Amino acid sequence: MLEALKKEVFDANIELVNKGLVIYTWGNVSGIDRESGLFVIKPSGVDYDTMKPDDMVVVDLEGNVVEGHYKPSSDTPTHIVLYKEYPEIGGVVHTHSDWATTFAQAGIDIPAFGTTHADYFYGDIPCARELTEAEVHGEYEKETGNVIVETLKQRNIKPLDIPAILVKNHGPFAWGKSPANAVYNAVVLDKVAQLAYNTMTLKPNTERVNSYLLDKHYMRKHGPNAYYGQGSK
Amino acid sequence: MLEALKKEVFDANIELVNKGLVIYTWGNVSGIDRESGLFVIKPSGVDYDTMKPDDMVVVDLEGNVVEGHYKPSSDTPTHIVLYKEYPEIGGVVHTHSDWATTFAQAGIDIPAFGTTHADYFYGDIPCARELTEAEVHGEYEKETGNVIVETLKQRNIKPLDIPAILVKNHGPFAWGKSPANAVYNAVVLDKVAQLAYNTMTLKPNTERVNSYLLDKHYMRKHGPNAYYGQGSK
Amino acid sequence: MLEALKKEVFDANIELVNKGLVIYTWGNVSGIDRESGLFVIKPSGVDYDTMKPDDMVVVDLEGNVVEGHYKPSSDTPTHIVLYKEYPEIGGVVHTHSDWATTFAQAGIDIPAFGTTHADYFYGDIPCARELTEAEVHGEYEKETGNVIVETLKQRNIKPLDIPAILVKNHGPFAWGKSPANAVYNAVVLDKVAQLAYNTMTLKPNTERVNSYLLDKHYMRKHGPNAYYGQGSK
Amino acid sequence: MLEALKKEVFDANIELVNKGLVIYTWGNVSGIDRESGLFVIKPSGVDYDTMKPDDMVVVDLEGNVVEGHYKPSSDTPTHIVLYKEYPEIGGVVHTHSDWATTFAQAGIDIPAFGTTHADYFYGDIPCARELTEAEVHGEYEKETGNVIVETLKQRNIKPLDIPAILVKNHGPFAWGKSPANAVYNAVVLDKVAQLAYNTMTLKPNTERVNSYLLDKHYMRKHGPNAYYGQGSK
Repeated sequence: MLEALKKEVFDANIELVNKGLVIYTWGNVSGIDRESGLFVIKPSGVDYDTMKPDDMVVVDLEGNVVEGHYKPSSDTPTHIVLYKEYPEIGGVVHTHSDWATTFAQAGIDIPAFGTTHADYFYGDIPCARELTEAEVHGEYEKETGNVIVETLKQRNIKPLDIPAILVKNHGPFAWGKSPANAVYNAVVLDKVAQLAYNTMTLKPNTERVNSYLLDKHYMRKHGPNAYYGQGSK
Repeated sequence: MLEALKKEVFDANIELVNKGLVIYTWGNVSGIDRESGLFVIKPSGVDYDTMKPDDMVVVDLEGNVVEGHYKPSSDTPTHIVLYKEYPEIGGVVHTHSDWATTFAQAGIDIPAFGTTHADYFYGDIPCARELTEAEVHGEYEKETGNVIVETLKQRNIKPLDIPAILVKNHGPFAWGKSPANAVYNAVVLDKVAQLAYNTMTLKPNTERVNSYLLDKHYMRKHGPNAYYGQGSK
Repeated sequence: MLEALKKEVFDANIELVNKGLVIYTWGNVSGIDRESGLFVIKPSGVDYDTMKPDDMVVVDLEGNVVEGHYKPSSDTPTHIVLYKEYPEIGGVVHTHSDWATTFAQAGIDIPAFGTTHADYFYGDIPCARELTEAEVHGEYEKETGNVIVETLKQRNIKPLDIPAILVKNHGPFAWGKSPANAVYNAVVLDKVAQLAYNTMTLKPNTERVNSYLLDKHYMRKHGPNAYYGQGSK
Repeated sequence: MLEALKKEVFDANIELVNKGLVIYTWGNVSGIDRESGLFVIKPSGVDYDTMKPDDMVVVDLEGNVVEGHYKPSSDTPTHIVLYKEYPEIGGVVHTHSDWATTFAQAGIDIPAFGTTHADYFYGDIPCARELTEAEVHGEYEKETGNVIVETLKQRNIKPLDIPAILVKNHGPFAWGKSPANAVYNAVVLDKVAQLAYNTMTLKPNTERVNSYLLDKHYMRKHGPNAYYGQGSK
């Protein structure tokens, strides 16, 4: 079942490795079929070198494995929270990519310093608060999803306007319209984090890009009058 | 038409990827045929993996597409300003390369710290001022070209003496005698920016290279009595 | 003799190169056969490009070469101390990998800043004290092993809970259940050190991950109720 | 003539590219035949991609081209000074490698922070003084060699004990017993400079490795009782 989506999710997981965002088994991508309400996710701790599309696990939104010979990623409950809350997203990614994880460990937002950032993220990329001891001891991975949703709500962020977040002392989650798009956003997130690190270590107290340039770049790619690309966005 | 130039511009765009200066569709190179007054530029938002020489777009200096099945790069008006102002340049490049973008985001010039810099850039590489709100809301990409020209004029810089500039909160533009030469300069720009970043973070307040060593190195490669290379410069 | 272990140790040495942890001959891996009390180690100063499984040297725990046409690694006495002290380890690695060596040169522990660290190391990764002049002038490589054991004891660390250490002004040692597992830990060590460097230069005085999140992540992979992976841990 | 040496020098130049120490034509290696007093050096500004062993240039110690269809490297006079002063060296390298050039631009020595450094360089790697205006306007490349010799003399350094130096605001020179050994030292130099940069930015005011550990590591590889490697050093 869902063979095409399995292939998409498999390819998206492999792309994480090819882009240098994960080593060993450190990451996971999922993709959802909104019609059936089922999603496909990487199995837990299976080596990327030997993994096949058929090893992907099909899960429903209550967390039941519907098909698959492996256990799904241990982060599956986080993906579920995001899919349930945001019908507009079709893929979710988690990594420990170098530069995004650096900001997650430092516990600070990635400031919007320029157009590279603004082309994809409409403002600072937030770092969610630390989970409480009760949350960690409870349904940890589900609470991770909850704190992501809490943060986006508090800041009035629509998920596709800033399609990534940092979880404090942990790492980034990214999402998108599809598994491939979510991985694309995860790659851009890490590049944007790297540029921000460089900028802040080169010149502490650098000011953010002004709001009219932020608007201009985000809108020229994503607004109703977008004119970047060939119009098939 | 202009098949040889299309191939040159295509190759120069691919070279950007090979040298690690761009990911995805983040960059563009153009080259001009001064005789016909037409230039060839990368299409907007087309994937480098599938792009062919024939996908390059031919544009005149008023911005009209003369030939091509794609829309030209959204930065086309910036290229036009540079070609109109500087008849001595034959190629223009825009990237978001890591180290040059770092300086653009910090909003500071790249100081000339050594002979690696002086071999190609005859002095600090300027960071142009922030565009005003009116400029961004108006013909944004054209105004980007205008602020580049304004900066070079204010600083009395001949474009081939310092063949690159940073646009604040955006990224670098570079140019050269040909598309390949412009890409070469974009690669050197990023290397020189990396060395400057390293130098400034290792030892803040490092002094610039003295003027006689700057002169010596620039002139031994580019002056009337240049003696570097095999004389076919 | 021990042909399978020789192949394992050889592969683990080559993996060090493939993962970018060593250049030239800068590193060594060994693996032990607990039944016979013999271990297999890389020869000293032999080029990785031409090295073959058969070039591995078999040594006993008194340091006598039992088989091999080459001298064993000059760090052999350090490996012996670790194998003697810790029956639970099956492989030992020494490298001068970039980020771990940075902390060793700075003489500071690698603080546990996040879950990437906690997934593999149950607390800060210690930097052992400087060796005394007498220790360096005496049986230097053996004393290096002794100072590692001394440090783990002082800090009440079980070797598989934090399977790596830094030796001041020198570099890292890592270990594991097998040669391959030791190399895995050496790779993770360097990645975790890189993230810590980035975090500390981005935001000095960053606080460590809190203890309940450290516990959670270490235990979800390594505790009695581990639920990461496919259960064949 | 000197066909074997030409091949050696050619291979050493290519190795510079393979190790990531140079881009484009930014570097040169030479090797000397002490019997004939002739040395072989890379031609000036010739592309590494198309260069052949036969393109190497044979030069005598007065700087006369004895054989070759190209002009020799513009840095040839620097190589000559070193070969004349130090009969024990057989190869010389110049690069603008990232980390060594960073220290050259900052104008500071590379401090000996650990055993990685001590294994190859018996103390801090010096940064030579700035050349005077008269020296730059005179025989610049020869004066570059003179300031290297002046620095080693002032500091009582035997060239094979610290086989590299930084020239202020310029970049590194390295040397060795052969062209291949000189390149090896240039690679280690850059790695050691990178580790020193990391150490100094992670913990400013880090102290140097103590002298007895420096002695131990240098001597275990290079002293009369060296015991690293297979004895064919």
